[in-house]
Amino acid sequence: MRDRIYFNEVVTRDGFQMESRFVPTDQKVALINELSRCGFAQIEVTSFTSAKAIPMLADAAEVMDRITRVPGVAYTVLIPNLKGAERAMQARPPDEFNLVMSVSETHNLANLRMSRERSFSALQEVIERFGASVPMNVSLSTSFGCPMEGAVPYQEVLRWSQRFVDLGVRGLTICDTTGMAHPDQVDQLCRLLQERLPEVRLTLHFHNPRGMGLANVLAATKAGITHFDGSLGGLGGCPYAPGASGNISSEDAIHMLNAMGYDTGIDLVALLRVARGLPLLVGHEVSGQVVKSGQISDLHPVSQSVRDLLATAG
Amino acid sequence: MRDRIYFNEVVTRDGFQMESRFVPTDQKVALINELSRCGFAQIEVTSFTSAKAIPMLADAAEVMDRITRVPGVAYTVLIPNLKGAERAMQARPPDEFNLVMSVSETHNLANLRMSRERSFSALQEVIERFGASVPMNVSLSTSFGCPMEGAVPYQEVLRWSQRFVDLGVRGLTICDTTGMAHPDQVDQLCRLLQERLPEVRLTLHFHNPRGMGLANVLAATKAGITHFDGSLGGLGGCPYAPGASGNISSEDAIHMLNAMGYDTGIDLVALLRVARGLPLLVGHEVSGQVVKSGQISDLHPVSQSVRDLLATAG
Repeated sequence: MRDRIYFNEVVTRDGFQMESRFVPTDQKVALINELSRCGFAQIEVTSFTSAKAIPMLADAAEVMDRITRVPGVAYTVLIPNLKGAERAMQARPPDEFNLVMSVSETHNLANLRMSRERSFSALQEVIERFGASVPMNVSLSTSFGCPMEGAVPYQEVLRWSQRFVDLGVRGLTICDTTGMAHPDQVDQLCRLLQERLPEVRLTLHFHNPRGMGLANVLAATKAGITHFDGSLGGLGGCPYAPGASGNISSEDAIHMLNAMGYDTGIDLVALLRVARGLPLLVGHEVSGQVVKSGQISDLHPVSQSVRDLLATAG
Repeated sequence: MRDRIYFNEVVTRDGFQMESRFVPTDQKVALINELSRCGFAQIEVTSFTSAKAIPMLADAAEVMDRITRVPGVAYTVLIPNLKGAERAMQARPPDEFNLVMSVSETHNLANLRMSRERSFSALQEVIERFGASVPMNVSLSTSFGCPMEGAVPYQEVLRWSQRFVDLGVRGLTICDTTGMAHPDQVDQLCRLLQERLPEVRLTLHFHNPRGMGLANVLAATKAGITHFDGSLGGLGGCPYAPGASGNISSEDAIHMLNAMGYDTGIDLVALLRVARGLPLLVGHEVSGQVVKSGQISDLHPVSQSVRDLLATAG
């Protein structure tokens, strides 16, 4: 058995936030409870964003209050600012806060309607207020490229990473928000960040709109990364690529790594069972492949005519 | 600029043979002529199989007679047996024959209705008769696993490869016929075959029903492989995985390798233009992603509201 790989399931946050149809709270709670029993290291449950901005996740506090927490699974929530952090702490507190901003100025303005400096200050407030009581992770969006600015220099990713590390943050998620990363870039940035920030737990967050999602997971794994975000069925995605795949599918990524002999800690049969229910839950097809094709190890029966041929061919 | 990578476009053979609706000969010829101008090293035009077995390719001779051959592009055809070879040579002869059999006995029986030994003998006849006048390539199906038998030992792939090399064959295509390969397996088998058969041009043929297609291309490239099959739009596929992706999409694979700095010789803008016409030609959506999401380098406009924010944020 090779290295242990840790998965953070983000479908109910990053996946659902793009959906147009509200998933009822009961069904969210049931889905998270099912995912909790599949062996994920972490689940990003919801987001304490304003209900106006993301109506789909307006029930964040209720979901956090109602889910059954499985020991060994870390339950995290996305926190946009101090107000969101306070709301999260008034509900059943999560095991971790996930704070988010973009490395690209233009993307931060487009997505969060403020400059990176203002985002940083807002997140700094959260860290200073709650850093002693809740572990902090920061997700750096567009770390591999911005759909409006284009290339994002590695040094910019390193600079913003360092600023958060200087505030005491020990978890960083390096996000390929719109699926612009290619495997050599992943290899280079992962090696650079690990070398410069050895004290940090690095998680890689990939999307698949150009088909490179699992190639990037492979490249990151080979570069020594052991923590990944994934979204059930590949749900989620990006408004810039309508019709294309969204996040990498957790079950497809886990299937690949299992096949390669990594220990993901996941009960893949149980996870595929959960994944099969997802299209009904969201009301449309999803992009995950293994649900359709089966695992490599799922063999097909030999037809009678072939058995007859086998008998005579011998 | 890194290594040169060579692509063989198989959509009009491996892609079309799975389609239920006949693509008219005029449209096949027009598509191949368009693909010829995109920079492919090779195009697998059609198959001289019996028209009864694959009605879609019943017009093989007419297609070969009518396409405009571009210098520098090798035009190859699939040849199942001596009769097919004779038919192919009566039309405008191709630049190469592609012969095919499975490494798995059960798959060969299911797919070709004969034992591997009988397939080998039939192909040997073709090689002995035409080997002096036409270069021969052999595609070894199920080299990475059989959907009925399961694992296929590397030694079996090597053994059948060696038998064809002993007949003078200098081109082998190692096929992951039903998408069972994982990247480490690809790395290992590619290194083994290159080491044992240094005189052979190895082409890798991947499918994507479990999302690993481009990860396997990456692994093969890193292992030193420079020749790949690809199918426009990811057309083709496998009856064992309904709804899942088929072959790897040529344009998605080429997009990834271009992004990584490899020289594929392909005009990707022209190829994407051709790919955009494919759903209309076959009457359904296809799985290629880059057509939907655009290339990494295709930037999106900055909205006026973000421009206003940018101005004040400065």
